[in-house]
Amino acid sequence: MTNDEFYMDLALNNALAMKGQTDPNPLVGSVIVNNNRVVGIGAHLKAGEPHAEIHAIRMAGDQAREGTIYVTLEPCSHHGRTGPCAVAIVEAGIKKVVIATLDPNPVVSGNGVKILKDAGIEVVVGVGMEKSQRMNEVFNKFIVQKKPFVTLKSGITLDGKIATHTSDSKWITSAEAREDVHHLRNQNMGILVGVNTVIKDDPELTARIPNGRNPIRVIMDSTLKLPLDSKVVTDKKAETWIFTSDTYDREKKQTLESMGINVFHTSGKKQVDPTEVVSILGEKLVSSLLIEGGGGINASFFENQLIDKVVLYMAPKLIGGSMSPSFLGGSGVEKMKDAVELSDASITQIGKDFKFVGYPIYK
Amino acid sequence: MTNDEFYMDLALNNALAMKGQTDPNPLVGSVIVNNNRVVGIGAHLKAGEPHAEIHAIRMAGDQAREGTIYVTLEPCSHHGRTGPCAVAIVEAGIKKVVIATLDPNPVVSGNGVKILKDAGIEVVVGVGMEKSQRMNEVFNKFIVQKKPFVTLKSGITLDGKIATHTSDSKWITSAEAREDVHHLRNQNMGILVGVNTVIKDDPELTARIPNGRNPIRVIMDSTLKLPLDSKVVTDKKAETWIFTSDTYDREKKQTLESMGINVFHTSGKKQVDPTEVVSILGEKLVSSLLIEGGGGINASFFENQLIDKVVLYMAPKLIGGSMSPSFLGGSGVEKMKDAVELSDASITQIGKDFKFVGYPIYK
Repeated sequence: MTNDEFYMDLALNNALAMKGQTDPNPLVGSVIVNNNRVVGIGAHLKAGEPHAEIHAIRMAGDQAREGTIYVTLEPCSHHGRTGPCAVAIVEAGIKKVVIATLDPNPVVSGNGVKILKDAGIEVVVGVGMEKSQRMNEVFNKFIVQKKPFVTLKSGITLDGKIATHTSDSKWITSAEAREDVHHLRNQNMGILVGVNTVIKDDPELTARIPNGRNPIRVIMDSTLKLPLDSKVVTDKKAETWIFTSDTYDREKKQTLESMGINVFHTSGKKQVDPTEVVSILGEKLVSSLLIEGGGGINASFFENQLIDKVVLYMAPKLIGGSMSPSFLGGSGVEKMKDAVELSDASITQIGKDFKFVGYPIYK
Repeated sequence: MTNDEFYMDLALNNALAMKGQTDPNPLVGSVIVNNNRVVGIGAHLKAGEPHAEIHAIRMAGDQAREGTIYVTLEPCSHHGRTGPCAVAIVEAGIKKVVIATLDPNPVVSGNGVKILKDAGIEVVVGVGMEKSQRMNEVFNKFIVQKKPFVTLKSGITLDGKIATHTSDSKWITSAEAREDVHHLRNQNMGILVGVNTVIKDDPELTARIPNGRNPIRVIMDSTLKLPLDSKVVTDKKAETWIFTSDTYDREKKQTLESMGINVFHTSGKKQVDPTEVVSILGEKLVSSLLIEGGGGINASFFENQLIDKVVLYMAPKLIGGSMSPSFLGGSGVEKMKDAVELSDASITQIGKDFKFVGYPIYK
């Protein structure tokens, strides 16, 4: 590990420690080093409060002069509450700036670097880039595309199954893995399932952890067959949004709306188009979506290349069966060479189970 | 880690280093400690040569007296080339014996410990037991049951698939994972596939690594439809044994036999019973069997509870598809609670892929 990597890692760790408290702003950390000593550290703590670089510069005081600043995201060039951070860095007399990643917003990306370079400051970009980008994966997609970052989550057996051929599915994974799912829900603004999952399991779809923030419950229901006595309709624990096709039941829509449920009427003739759902959610400022569907729902998002991240809880057990449903249904690819590879794949152990995380690379 | 665990670990590591050179004997290691110093180490190196304890006692010389010996398997009580090891330990004046695991053979298990205890020696059993038993998993099963230790190996996508719905399967896993498979083949006396795999892929089923030992190629072929020009028939790189049902083609059997192929006629009317195959292989002293079948063959062994160990090479890719075959076909269990759990489950990374190893616990 080089010195640059060491100090950037410190900045990244401080940034990551603020996860959940900076929304809608990204996580950012900063470290100032002078004469091989850390003279200031900072992180963005809360939207409306100073950026990470400003905290670090204030802590360093006079010792910022001739120092090197490490920052996990390109210093801003716009006039916010404290003026552009790039200008503050220039004014502090810093001589070198190490940046993990440029601003994801193409409209302003590179502007901060330009201010620094125009002032004669040495700028290095890319140290810790991947970690910085992953840390703000939701922010980075939403700021550019105005569409939610979509995570597919599934609890599966080692043979990729989500139920037996008799549709029995309780329980596949351990209590520890199921608790981890509640943290995932807590981190997402929306959670999506198909109406068949609601009919079969009557789930709450809430984040059952201390101080958990419940996501908006998004139900794909092309004909509005959602039971009126299901928990997502009656329990008031979180908002419920239903996406229906053009052939929905008008009367049922009115009934649901009178019960406080949002019904979105989409353009699909018989089916709800998942691409349209994602676009509408983006317009409604839902920046992150967790999909916990059955094989059909999961495949419809996957085949439309809408899944940004895959999280699988794999129980070390086997059920077998050609007709036992896998977590991805649909028709699948024709040729193995067309399989969708996942980058940055990792597996960690959670209780007795294994948690896989990866990012699909669509062709 | 206690002192006992530390020294036993050394004995286990020395034992494991001899993997492949002690057949048909088990792997055994030994360490003698006196006054907190290692005074002797030993391992069983080759069938017909001294046992691990004897090597360690010879190295220790006079310093074995009043010492503690660590041995990964219960010292033997029978008169082999060097006399019973338990007696040699008594005669060396050792005062304490730490044993990882008792002899797996119920006929003699405990006899070594009895000789030691009758001589007034302190005996501790169980330190490092699991590692010692896993290290000799093939030997331990075969010595007791006279049936091969059966490993199911499959290369799968993250969704548990072995091919697309068009039967395309090349390649799922990376070159590194496929090389690891050749080591697995090298470690097994037999490798089993169904005739359909031979017809579709015409595989060699050999261990393509330096100094690789090719396993016996075992083909399940109920009607003897094996093509006469397939590599397993013509290449002479290893023996080929075919198991056929009672309805086989007499003339084809003679042709195959004239080409040097062993044909085993089993009692099944139309299908070959996998339990019968395993029994016959055991009678023929095949102590380890690797199954690399398709979903049907794999499921037939799994449903008959014949699989002792599961090794899965999981590629971080997805293909989807309700009709894409999974590595376990058949009908599968009815209820999720009847899923077969795997104990000692572990996942390690091999190239871009993940290698899962676990041991089914049948109910």
